[in-house]
Amino acid sequence: MIVTVTLNLALDVTYRVPRLTPGATHRVAVDQRAGGKGVNVARVLRTLGEDAVVCGFAGGGTGRLALADLESAGIPARTTPIDGESRRTLAVVDAQVGEATGFWEPGPAVTDAEWAALLHDVDAELRRARALVLSGSLPLGVPDDAYAVLCGRAARAGVPGVLDADGNALRHGLAGGPDVVKPNRDELESVAQSADVREGAAHLRALGARSVVVSLGAEGLLAVTGEGSWRARPAHPAAGNPTGAGDAGVAALALGLARGWTWPQRLAEAVALSAAAVAAPLAGSFDDEAYRRQRAGATVDALPMATTGKG
Amino acid sequence: MIVTVTLNLALDVTYRVPRLTPGATHRVAVDQRAGGKGVNVARVLRTLGEDAVVCGFAGGGTGRLALADLESAGIPARTTPIDGESRRTLAVVDAQVGEATGFWEPGPAVTDAEWAALLHDVDAELRRARALVLSGSLPLGVPDDAYAVLCGRAARAGVPGVLDADGNALRHGLAGGPDVVKPNRDELESVAQSADVREGAAHLRALGARSVVVSLGAEGLLAVTGEGSWRARPAHPAAGNPTGAGDAGVAALALGLARGWTWPQRLAEAVALSAAAVAAPLAGSFDDEAYRRQRAGATVDALPMATTGKG
Repeated sequence: MIVTVTLNLALDVTYRVPRLTPGATHRVAVDQRAGGKGVNVARVLRTLGEDAVVCGFAGGGTGRLALADLESAGIPARTTPIDGESRRTLAVVDAQVGEATGFWEPGPAVTDAEWAALLHDVDAELRRARALVLSGSLPLGVPDDAYAVLCGRAARAGVPGVLDADGNALRHGLAGGPDVVKPNRDELESVAQSADVREGAAHLRALGARSVVVSLGAEGLLAVTGEGSWRARPAHPAAGNPTGAGDAGVAALALGLARGWTWPQRLAEAVALSAAAVAAPLAGSFDDEAYRRQRAGATVDALPMATTGKG
Repeated sequence: MIVTVTLNLALDVTYRVPRLTPGATHRVAVDQRAGGKGVNVARVLRTLGEDAVVCGFAGGGTGRLALADLESAGIPARTTPIDGESRRTLAVVDAQVGEATGFWEPGPAVTDAEWAALLHDVDAELRRARALVLSGSLPLGVPDDAYAVLCGRAARAGVPGVLDADGNALRHGLAGGPDVVKPNRDELESVAQSADVREGAAHLRALGARSVVVSLGAEGLLAVTGEGSWRARPAHPAAGNPTGAGDAGVAALALGLARGWTWPQRLAEAVALSAAAVAAPLAGSFDDEAYRRQRAGATVDALPMATTGKG
């Protein structure tokens, strides 16, 4: 079982309209489901046959709607109740242009007692976990080093951790010594202050990460680890919706930790699942046929040791 | 106390954005409150010092959010729980253009048992009510003659009723003999099939309404009753947000029924409150200063008897 933590758990709402016309009133068709990066990871893991438990904060009517959706999707959740109202993220999809317009509500603020209760809930799930996934932004009221604290709890329980975060949450999280950190190029640059990907990855390792897997969008992944460095590429360029592609990659990396896969195996799975997620319309899902084709053709090449720190 | 029934009770959500840009992602500021025409009427009544109880269907997390807002606004509610999820109506307000873009979710479907439970709840409130207000559209699953049935319950309890509806809901509601029906010009024409307002109003009386008050937008009201006909005009043209102006007028008409005001008094209050609601930013509120000025200057003129049905 893998625990995914989504501190900014959300309700993802989709409004479909024939044509988005500013100033007009639209009658909409509605879809809504639990959202947030860790929720997407859990959905992918479940599809892959691995049990996943969703942890995070949930509050108010919106939190209840998100939990009801997780229940109907068969994904167990041990969320920590908060007084605040969980946020909604709305996408208005224009059928004519095929374009989504996004509206992100601010997340709720969390109290010290609620943060302590979350740690307690995650600790309880870590007892039977084989990996921990920490994804996404931090809500107001949670300490900047929240991810370092959670990595520490996982380490104490003997559970390896994957961290997928940005900016301050990533920077402070590194001190907790996560087994895998998965930044994209922008996230890496925001912390490492280097435009060179291998150099940046080495810098994140110096700051505490045991291994760094940088997602390069459609070009695949670059991994820098204590056992070597690799460059992984998908079999075919993927066209579609890139939302959730990173989460599918994280699911593969967590599964690799939990199941003791080699690095080349983890990376091949990660690029294949990411590309297959681009081919699927919803975050948290992937196209099964695309996954099989990508997995068969994905390439992973070992990189020579970087002698100067330039790669 | 006045009972307002809002069968399609909603959660009115407002997203404020600096500029609405189709295809972009926006971080939004959120306001949300209970909505629906009868809820607006209850808010106005409460501000005027009259107790109002909100009846209607409420379900799911969205229904709970609407009820929590009513509670915090100090408006008592006796809503009937449903298995379905109450709808949201979203307005995205563009600060630069000052324009609202609306998104209306479909309402939930209601079962026969839920409709029977609502009748029971409304009956209980009618025992201590001095007027009943029936406002807005009918949810799926409720009979077309829902408003006629509710008018019949009110009549049996000796409580006068005001009906503010459109299309089929209005047409079938007339058979219940509502004391006051308040269509706007379009709603009147949809049922009366006549472009002449006085003729149309007389037709609605022939179909069962005891009196008909037609709202003419910024031009005021025209009333056709068993005691005479009147033309009421606001003191000044009102500029602002017309949403909720009709509901403020309905609140005045219901208050007039409950307190035994004369028709000229009811109509003067109704045009003044409608105009003062246009001057306030939110439906269910009105501008106090504008109300005083409009009330002082509103005019109500008796119309000569229509001898031919042409007015």
